[in-house]
Amino acid sequence: MAFGWIDEQAQARRRAGLVRTLRPRAADSPLLDLAGNDYLGLARHPEVTEGAARAARLWGGGSTGSRLVTGTTDLHGELERELADFCGFEAALVFSSGYAANLAAVTALAPHGSLIVSDAGNHASLIDGCRLARGTTQVVAHADPDAVRKILGTHPGPAVLVSDTVFSVDGDAAPLAELAAACRESGAGMIIDDAHGLGVLGTGGRGAPHAAELAGAPDVVATVTLSKSLGSQGGAVLGPAPVIDHLVNAARTFIFDTGLAPAATGAALAALRVLRREPERAAQARTVATALHTRLTADGHEAVRPDAAVVSVRAPSPEQAVEWAADCRAAGVAVGCFRPPSVPDGISRLRLTARADLTDEQIGHAVGVIGATRP
Amino acid sequence: MAFGWIDEQAQARRRAGLVRTLRPRAADSPLLDLAGNDYLGLARHPEVTEGAARAARLWGGGSTGSRLVTGTTDLHGELERELADFCGFEAALVFSSGYAANLAAVTALAPHGSLIVSDAGNHASLIDGCRLARGTTQVVAHADPDAVRKILGTHPGPAVLVSDTVFSVDGDAAPLAELAAACRESGAGMIIDDAHGLGVLGTGGRGAPHAAELAGAPDVVATVTLSKSLGSQGGAVLGPAPVIDHLVNAARTFIFDTGLAPAATGAALAALRVLRREPERAAQARTVATALHTRLTADGHEAVRPDAAVVSVRAPSPEQAVEWAADCRAAGVAVGCFRPPSVPDGISRLRLTARADLTDEQIGHAVGVIGATRP
Ligand SMILES: Cc1ncc(COP(=O)(O)O)c(C=O)c1O
Ligand SMILES: Cc1ncc(COP(=O)(O)O)c(C=O)c1O
Repeated sequence: MAFGWIDEQAQARRRAGLVRTLRPRAADSPLLDLAGNDYLGLARHPEVTEGAARAARLWGGGSTGSRLVTGTTDLHGELERELADFCGFEAALVFSSGYAANLAAVTALAPHGSLIVSDAGNHASLIDGCRLARGTTQVVAHADPDAVRKILGTHPGPAVLVSDTVFSVDGDAAPLAELAAACRESGAGMIIDDAHGLGVLGTGGRGAPHAAELAGAPDVVATVTLSKSLGSQGGAVLGPAPVIDHLVNAARTFIFDTGLAPAATGAALAALRVLRREPERAAQARTVATALHTRLTADGHEAVRPDAAVVSVRAPSPEQAVEWAADCRAAGVAVGCFRPPSVPDGISRLRLTARADLTDEQIGHAVGVIGATRP
Repeated sequence: MAFGWIDEQAQARRRAGLVRTLRPRAADSPLLDLAGNDYLGLARHPEVTEGAARAARLWGGGSTGSRLVTGTTDLHGELERELADFCGFEAALVFSSGYAANLAAVTALAPHGSLIVSDAGNHASLIDGCRLARGTTQVVAHADPDAVRKILGTHPGPAVLVSDTVFSVDGDAAPLAELAAACRESGAGMIIDDAHGLGVLGTGGRGAPHAAELAGAPDVVATVTLSKSLGSQGGAVLGPAPVIDHLVNAARTFIFDTGLAPAATGAALAALRVLRREPERAAQARTVATALHTRLTADGHEAVRPDAAVVSVRAPSPEQAVEWAADCRAAGVAVGCFRPPSVPDGISRLRLTARADLTDEQIGHAVGVIGATRP
């Protein structure tokens, strides 16, 4: 049997208790959501859903082709301009997902003969970008500017550092200023993935590159996703105009992919405008994260101090992490659960996300449930 | 300068006349569109745009997380069931793009030690899937079952053939029955990308695998996109339930990507329902393609006989292809233009797409413009 070999893997997964299953949610799910990445509570904001609806009506259900053929609308251009302006970059390019944006940035900016220095904690999409790129990848210890400096010193040609700004699993921030200093010593570029920074970090949510005064620099390229703080779908690469032009000409996930759907483009644009008008949402997401962390550690949980809106809580084992998350869910609170093999460091944890619109009461309820179900 | 090396490439592109530029379109663009992939004219169908709008209102602007965390809604499940049922497969899994679906299918089904036999004319997303997969890739001559048989005969372990069903550039169909016979001789599986077949080929648009009686077979996995005939965005993998379960557990572009936005899911579902109710749209797209081909060849153009809804017309050189497409556009007709280096065979062509709702008059007008602007 052609695909018979997968049965064995499925059995091994069952034996190890590692089977993943899809649990569809209802539109009116009563669960308190501390698992999604809708950090600003904008996914269901009426202006955002109306932005999606209006764009679909005006432009159609899909963009009908590659951005280079029929898939670029005035709406895409508008989002690109406002996003670049907000985050402090010269230009932006919108993709169908953050995943595609990361594949594009890394592959197009790490040609044959170049060196890619990649943080050990990077997101899967950056890792896949490194694997697809023609350059050579060296994985470097997590958040370690000295290690980056050392590796960069060994390579004479073009080089680029690739890192999350906020790491998706533990929610810790990369030491951007120190990393930039290390890169600049040897003239290396930076590709930094601000998926979990946009909308949360920086003045009014302008993101981690802006906060680190790296936005707009000629040697810095940032990627963002529209699927977290902006409550939509899609991704973007931000950088100097010549870099963006280069991506238009060279990035396969741009050239050979259908443009982002009008509804997603419209939703992200509407969310961005809400955020500009209500910049306090960014600080509020951080405040909620800090409150969650403070109350959890006060209760004796081992939790990583959040640099953004992700709060990671240690679990004793993969099995207990899975059970803990299931028990929270049964008690009405949805939390994320990360455990091997999807995390390389072998640590199992609950992953909680702060949302700007969580009330004190909801935070208290969530912390109570997490404590009561503790393994 | 970190990214200084791209300037040289940009200059070379300019010298060669190969610069790609984005041309945003307006919502009320007066161009006659023979460039997009909206084969059934559903992208702007009111039921489709309403499907998008309703889904955004009910579910939000984005799905808020990975399909394994918060990103699966009842709507995703509904689309998966109806899509699998329509195309004749046991199960389906929806992705954020067709590109992501292809990366998932190839990487998850070609493990270390396996052989991937990949058609030389395959889409970029399948090629990237081959490059990301742990298996070893052998590129095989275009649409050549004997060559496939020969390569498969050399490999004892798991093997998989990877092919478009309808090739995106020339619009020619793969010899699916012969390829299946070759694969079955050695127990190899098939991954076939029906991006340009769904909605156009097979009874009522059920796609090329259904037409070739391969749908639902235990050794056949199909991928589709929601961004062409279904007028939306997204992709799906169709196959036996154990294969789909395997993807849920192993495909990185599924596990580590935000779920498809509700609006895109709703638009695709609405389009699928229109197609079920009006199955004649599929045949009509093929009729329009044939009419385009007949009239173009009668005018002395060299065009590939269309197996689906893509009509490819030869151009004398890359420069003349670009100019020809620009002249068509200036005369009010949008056509695609494929030329080196984005096509590996060195052939330059205009790429026309048939749409089920093109009138005889529009077809005549387009053919007139293409003739009048001929280099
Ligand atoms: C750090 C990081 N980068 C990129 C992505 C991919 O973005 P998207 O889900 O929009 O494709 C994600 C999450 O999904 C992420 O956490
Ligand atoms: C053959 C083929 N496969 C896959 C894709 C990718 O699909 P999507 O654009 O929905 O990501 C395309 C076109 O874009 C295609 O032509």
